[in-house]
Amino acid sequence: MTDAQPRFPHRHLLGIEGLSPLDIKALLDLADAAVDVSRQVEKKKATLRGRTQINLFFEPSTRTQASFELAGKRLGADVMNMSVASSSVKKGETLIDTAATLNAMRPDLIVVRHDAAGAVNLLARKVDCSVINAGDGSHEHPTQALLDALTIRRNKGTIAGLTVAICGDILHSRVARSNMILLAAMGARVRLVAPSTLLPAGIAQLGFETFSDMARGLAGADIVMMLRLQRERMNGSFVPSVKEYFRYYGLDREKLALAAPDALVMHPGPMNRGVEIASDVADGPQSLIREQVEMGVAVRMAVLEALAMHLPGKA
Amino acid sequence: MTDAQPRFPHRHLLGIEGLSPLDIKALLDLADAAVDVSRQVEKKKATLRGRTQINLFFEPSTRTQASFELAGKRLGADVMNMSVASSSVKKGETLIDTAATLNAMRPDLIVVRHDAAGAVNLLARKVDCSVINAGDGSHEHPTQALLDALTIRRNKGTIAGLTVAICGDILHSRVARSNMILLAAMGARVRLVAPSTLLPAGIAQLGFETFSDMARGLAGADIVMMLRLQRERMNGSFVPSVKEYFRYYGLDREKLALAAPDALVMHPGPMNRGVEIASDVADGPQSLIREQVEMGVAVRMAVLEALAMHLPGKA
Amino acid sequence: MTDAQPRFPHRHLLGIEGLSPLDIKALLDLADAAVDVSRQVEKKKATLRGRTQINLFFEPSTRTQASFELAGKRLGADVMNMSVASSSVKKGETLIDTAATLNAMRPDLIVVRHDAAGAVNLLARKVDCSVINAGDGSHEHPTQALLDALTIRRNKGTIAGLTVAICGDILHSRVARSNMILLAAMGARVRLVAPSTLLPAGIAQLGFETFSDMARGLAGADIVMMLRLQRERMNGSFVPSVKEYFRYYGLDREKLALAAPDALVMHPGPMNRGVEIASDVADGPQSLIREQVEMGVAVRMAVLEALAMHLPGKA
Repeated sequence: MTDAQPRFPHRHLLGIEGLSPLDIKALLDLADAAVDVSRQVEKKKATLRGRTQINLFFEPSTRTQASFELAGKRLGADVMNMSVASSSVKKGETLIDTAATLNAMRPDLIVVRHDAAGAVNLLARKVDCSVINAGDGSHEHPTQALLDALTIRRNKGTIAGLTVAICGDILHSRVARSNMILLAAMGARVRLVAPSTLLPAGIAQLGFETFSDMARGLAGADIVMMLRLQRERMNGSFVPSVKEYFRYYGLDREKLALAAPDALVMHPGPMNRGVEIASDVADGPQSLIREQVEMGVAVRMAVLEALAMHLPGKA
Repeated sequence: MTDAQPRFPHRHLLGIEGLSPLDIKALLDLADAAVDVSRQVEKKKATLRGRTQINLFFEPSTRTQASFELAGKRLGADVMNMSVASSSVKKGETLIDTAATLNAMRPDLIVVRHDAAGAVNLLARKVDCSVINAGDGSHEHPTQALLDALTIRRNKGTIAGLTVAICGDILHSRVARSNMILLAAMGARVRLVAPSTLLPAGIAQLGFETFSDMARGLAGADIVMMLRLQRERMNGSFVPSVKEYFRYYGLDREKLALAAPDALVMHPGPMNRGVEIASDVADGPQSLIREQVEMGVAVRMAVLEALAMHLPGKA
Repeated sequence: MTDAQPRFPHRHLLGIEGLSPLDIKALLDLADAAVDVSRQVEKKKATLRGRTQINLFFEPSTRTQASFELAGKRLGADVMNMSVASSSVKKGETLIDTAATLNAMRPDLIVVRHDAAGAVNLLARKVDCSVINAGDGSHEHPTQALLDALTIRRNKGTIAGLTVAICGDILHSRVARSNMILLAAMGARVRLVAPSTLLPAGIAQLGFETFSDMARGLAGADIVMMLRLQRERMNGSFVPSVKEYFRYYGLDREKLALAAPDALVMHPGPMNRGVEIASDVADGPQSLIREQVEMGVAVRMAVLEALAMHLPGKA
């Protein structure tokens, strides 16, 4: 990184909570530069040469793990994937022992996904290297919020002042949670649009506008951010029928027409087509969904680079 | 690649169908050179440095995935493996969404194995990079046919004019299909030897000689190419008993003696010893089975190099 | 490696059995140097550049596979992981065919873990490259014994003359077996402490002191080496209750106080806390358990480097 680049004063990236607007801007600026690396024929930098990055995934994930793996490799790191299926967790080892074991192998960066909120923070306290939260339970998924912000900023020029409607299964969504914090910090006006059963209790008191009527929630919005309906997390009470859900909360062309004329559509993926989003909207001219994936690699490169300033042994 | 090397005019390798004899020769010539790379102490070229190769396997495979992984790494590419077990397909993502997602990560090469015929062609239409078919249903497995051709050419000097007997479960075999097309294109005389229940309907009309009698099918053959009995694909009607199958269609020394005296034996692996082939033949002096595996790495290096001429961004 | 480094005269590392004290010393000296590589910011050497290392794991393992993967990558090798779950073993391929197939891909080093004692030796006889035993059934786990020896030597200055108490499930432990051979060869006094049902028959005749009373077994010991209780290997007869086991054979502060005042505690991991070891001892000032993991990477680097002198094609 050149001297001109802004300094990132954190050792870990555990969540958006705790980042200042300046921190966020620093990461987005780094990410803007990283986009170009992946667009070259030789998509390779030497920033992390000789560094060890461990992707420790207690939950499976195609796109997030792939995105981190490519980000690390394109920066020249040695990347090692570890998934629970083949891990010692089966033999009864605790999360803390796993952390201590990996730490003793002297990695520089550990990327962690875990199904329990807070597990990544716990792990970060037990290691000497930098830890990146790749999603922990329903808590945070900071790189997703950063890639969403990067995508918005590149398309709208700025985040401040935009009206962003986050729609769908907000209750179970760490993506929503990280985005709410980031967008509010950067000066966007955040609306939460969901059936009341899929809204966290007390969310209105935190200053977010809530809507159970999709038409009112989308009216005039600049960004429509759809969420995946996570039926696999709905153990018990309320599981909406897909057909009903799509009718009231699925984003189709009619509902999208209620947003601003130049509104843009986002989705963190993987999509349930015909459930929370219609195919023609997902693939339509207002969709940023593919660009989000590309920005994902860039943002992860930026985060890895930013934390590299704090890597053990770095002068 | 040096200027002297022949140009390969295709962006993808989806099958042998559509390749000219000149295309095939170009790949085999490149592969001949690649053999030597893997025989050196430092088995490494820089041809694909900074390129991203994704191995996307919807069906598990030891040897094919390993062969592509080593081929890519020996050419200097960043290689990322993705298998279905840990993928978003579980979450209901479509093949096309998976393709679009990976495409957005800006790979240069995607190697795909899928259990549905045609899935790889579909995927290739949705991405900007080069796609290599590593086996799709009972459709094609072009790198297997190319490695078989390379093995034959290196041992017999030429393919044209040889009599090649492909024996066994032809009905379920993409290996057989790709080999039939390639061998016919290169001027070999192809015989299909199988019980009528394991022959595709109407195959005789396509100009291939068919034999249900192994003795007649092998008589004077230069190459005896055995196929794996794929009992796992035989859902329903006819599943032969292993003992009966071996008696009539298993390659033992007695049956092999009916072929040409210098006949060579091939098998794509993994072998069912005692089912389609006797152990003493598999391990005997006429067997090319191990050499086929070595040629597999070389052929995949050649294909990766040939397609690299079409990689996005390449001038 | 520099000229000054001692020569290692073996092509494979299949076990501690067969190594001379000089061989062991050579590996430990190499490992001492390798420790520093992983402590640097750029933890990378070029010793194995362009070499192919295959990690072939028929049994899952977090730490051992990770340790070998990082060791190989830090030495610059191309490392390929293969686990049974996605392998051809499902299709009925034999171990020997798997060996022959991998061998044809021209690897330089194959690291193998298998659940059957002797499987790694069998495989080594079928390939042209170097083979490293990463644990085979209840036979040997030589790199574990070497990392234990390295840890001891770095903390005690020497191995000769020390009293080492190996405690717990010795019957099922390849770790115990490799350690017994190594420690005896290096001049330590080895005690085996276990309930008689967890001791191999006839072990006392081999010259090892055995104790069923933990207090007597630990008295004055310099090193207390705990083993994991492998209940998953105890099919049938005797499975001790966890509570009873901990009471009589679990290492807690009271029992540890019986050892030498400067006794050090080891465990190969993963630990069953509260079963064979108390948490305050595992995490206490006398514990070397984390250091063992770090030494694991160093020892594997040393073994890879030592065998590299024998790699095919090396002058």
